[in-house]
Amino acid sequence: MGKTPRYLQIVHLIREKIEKGEWVVGSKIPTQRAIAEQFHVNRSTVVTAIEILKAEGLLEGRAGSGVYIVNNQWSLSAAISPPNWDDLAQWSLQPPSNHTVQLINELENRKDLIQLSKGELGPDLFPQSEISEALAKVSGQLHGFGYGNGLGDSGLRAEISKHMEKYGLSIAPESILIVSGALQALTLITIGILKKGSAVFLEIPSYLHSVNLFRTADITIKPVAVTKNGLDMKELFQQKITKGASALYVNPTYQNPTGTTMSTEQRQQLMEKCRYFQLPVIEDDIFRDLWIDEPAPAPLKTFDQAGQVLYVGSFSKTIAPGLRIGWLAGPEDVIHRLSDVRMQTDYGSSYLSQVLIRELLRSGLYEQHLQKVRSRLRERRAFLLQALALHLSEYATWHAASGGFFIWVTLKKKINMYQLFKACLSSGVLINPGFIYNESGPSIRLSYAYEEIEKMEAGIIKLKDVLKDHLNR
Amino acid sequence: MGKTPRYLQIVHLIREKIEKGEWVVGSKIPTQRAIAEQFHVNRSTVVTAIEILKAEGLLEGRAGSGVYIVNNQWSLSAAISPPNWDDLAQWSLQPPSNHTVQLINELENRKDLIQLSKGELGPDLFPQSEISEALAKVSGQLHGFGYGNGLGDSGLRAEISKHMEKYGLSIAPESILIVSGALQALTLITIGILKKGSAVFLEIPSYLHSVNLFRTADITIKPVAVTKNGLDMKELFQQKITKGASALYVNPTYQNPTGTTMSTEQRQQLMEKCRYFQLPVIEDDIFRDLWIDEPAPAPLKTFDQAGQVLYVGSFSKTIAPGLRIGWLAGPEDVIHRLSDVRMQTDYGSSYLSQVLIRELLRSGLYEQHLQKVRSRLRERRAFLLQALALHLSEYATWHAASGGFFIWVTLKKKINMYQLFKACLSSGVLINPGFIYNESGPSIRLSYAYEEIEKMEAGIIKLKDVLKDHLNR
Repeated sequence: MGKTPRYLQIVHLIREKIEKGEWVVGSKIPTQRAIAEQFHVNRSTVVTAIEILKAEGLLEGRAGSGVYIVNNQWSLSAAISPPNWDDLAQWSLQPPSNHTVQLINELENRKDLIQLSKGELGPDLFPQSEISEALAKVSGQLHGFGYGNGLGDSGLRAEISKHMEKYGLSIAPESILIVSGALQALTLITIGILKKGSAVFLEIPSYLHSVNLFRTADITIKPVAVTKNGLDMKELFQQKITKGASALYVNPTYQNPTGTTMSTEQRQQLMEKCRYFQLPVIEDDIFRDLWIDEPAPAPLKTFDQAGQVLYVGSFSKTIAPGLRIGWLAGPEDVIHRLSDVRMQTDYGSSYLSQVLIRELLRSGLYEQHLQKVRSRLRERRAFLLQALALHLSEYATWHAASGGFFIWVTLKKKINMYQLFKACLSSGVLINPGFIYNESGPSIRLSYAYEEIEKMEAGIIKLKDVLKDHLNR
Repeated sequence: MGKTPRYLQIVHLIREKIEKGEWVVGSKIPTQRAIAEQFHVNRSTVVTAIEILKAEGLLEGRAGSGVYIVNNQWSLSAAISPPNWDDLAQWSLQPPSNHTVQLINELENRKDLIQLSKGELGPDLFPQSEISEALAKVSGQLHGFGYGNGLGDSGLRAEISKHMEKYGLSIAPESILIVSGALQALTLITIGILKKGSAVFLEIPSYLHSVNLFRTADITIKPVAVTKNGLDMKELFQQKITKGASALYVNPTYQNPTGTTMSTEQRQQLMEKCRYFQLPVIEDDIFRDLWIDEPAPAPLKTFDQAGQVLYVGSFSKTIAPGLRIGWLAGPEDVIHRLSDVRMQTDYGSSYLSQVLIRELLRSGLYEQHLQKVRSRLRERRAFLLQALALHLSEYATWHAASGGFFIWVTLKKKINMYQLFKACLSSGVLINPGFIYNESGPSIRLSYAYEEIEKMEAGIIKLKDVLKDHLNR
């Protein structure tokens, strides 16, 4: 494009997007800043280009609202407007996710930000050599990857069955369904089992996506507080529990986002009560393999003699989210039913990912990797706690989790958390504010899983500066 | 388990399943035959074991209905029954899929059956060496697989963008969303864009899963016939088309199950009409790369100047379904919205599958594989047509597809297709009867993609024998 002036290049590119229908008539164009970034030009160049396109009648500015596409090649010639997808979307079954969550999803891919809350292992903990070794091993054994039967690869299910024995669970491979992660497990349970109009007891704060999911399916959410020992049982069992129309969704081990863990005694008590009230339990246990100090208390599922618990595990936190492999264990007929729902939704998980994880488990490479991860998380947790003590003790309190990724920090004074979030962002630090976990107090989820220690400390110092600035205003 | 008598081993195994809650109180146990198969014993052994468990009070026979689990360790001791998942399931959002479809899903995994309808490439067409080569290439370049931004790997999207240029489409990577296949593309569109209560025009016969999906989402299905030249346009445009509340779902190239293809002229006409009626179009084009005689007419999307077509592609038919990778191309804001719905559903596709396909495309190995596939499909189609002419011309008619996998066979006389399906099964042949595609006539989808020619002919001969038998009764 060498000799064409920059602004004309932009005119050309935008015109092309409109002509091809990539930018639809009736919709707003991105901000000048976003366009400038997308095409790597100055904002003034974008301004010039937009003026030209306005003159051509393709764009139109609306006061206080932005610039809209009002025409394209086809509509100019035929004077009939194209279908309004936006309008359709407003009536859709699934509302767009919470704005901040969407923003965080995007910002988590930005390499220039310090990721102080990110719920994934950092790049240095990616098991590159283990994966290469396992891939080399299975690469020659691959055969046709068919649609399968919905449950997932039987070899992987056998390995997961064996792996769960370490948790004290004895679950046959036929009672295991491979899923793409905990989110999909919840989606399948919601679509395939929960009644419309039924209620789910949910820890608050808790895993952010679950709330949207339940809401979309007309499931009433009944909040239950999380104490420093996990789910507040007293609060739970004071509520009305309707047999056949209630379920409990709980994350008892290294809870996301608070990091709390229920003790063995509490687990026993909870399961006794749930048995009495015939309350089905969805046990989200995806952080279990990431114990730091000592193995976690046995899963709720170990106290389940009545097929009352659906158990959710995952490799997203321990290997990598991008493999999209988790599992769901429960009564055979429930699993069978959910595998049928799965076949109707997306036909199952990537066979390649499944075969890779099967080999990582079989060979012991997974266990070897976990040991490395645990020792690194131990170091990083110690470092983050030290940094917090050094820089934030004036402003906040927290307590150390015995495993998983997170430290839940609560500020001593109430401040506007959305403004804090934005101010941190301006300083190049991304934090997950408590409100995205439905927490009303001034809390932040910090993670020691992602960043290396230098960046972690730099992030904490920046957070401190922002806090100081906010509180002294 | 050496010395314990067989029947006691079965008692023990069943008791264990009940105690662990894998078989739930209140539910029916599998048939004697299924149990015998599962544990590799005679049916008489199963009968003995069931009698013992009945005596113990764990099982109970109900006349004409089967054997039920009436108790387990826990309910014996506490006399409170566990939650009834089955009951919950009856009220669920998603009805279990059509019985025959479920059965076929399972039977397609049986190696002892001749798979005469299976919609996948056979094991001999699995690109083992190409995949090994590509994996070896990328294995060293892997880095952290994060959650990503919902759109999918940008490198893969760039390669798909380039690949679509061969179709005559010029679509930027930002307008492409990676999905797990055509079924998920449809699911996302249904959840994220279609209004409750709106109508989708659907070819009949057509892709079996779409019907369930739309029904579940309260979308009215409006059938449109498929002629030997594809979608019956006259029938379509005689119907009421409500702006903003209607969409067309169409598979114009090597249609599944009929194998028909719309000509360029018809495509132009269809798009002109759709433009006039402002009818959004979902173009399912997953068989395009599998042309046999000559490349297919250009996609409907090439005639789309208004961002009116959502285009669906896939690697399930051309490489392997188990990779779970397809794509959706459309206006940037629609794609962005659907990627958000995707993030809320399952966080995206396997990064490993994506990287593998990216490398297959980049290296030219995909194109090389396609050439092999096309030449093999050409041979097999010729063979199947020959076998049909030789064995079935007395009973049926059909016409050759110019690409894809299928030949749609219509019997000359009406017979009970469910009985034909079962009779074929008894002879060791699995066929997909027309009714699973919502076709009322006596039709069968045959596939030349899966079995090698010897088995294909053996299957056709068995089908002929079954037909002869049925018609002479």
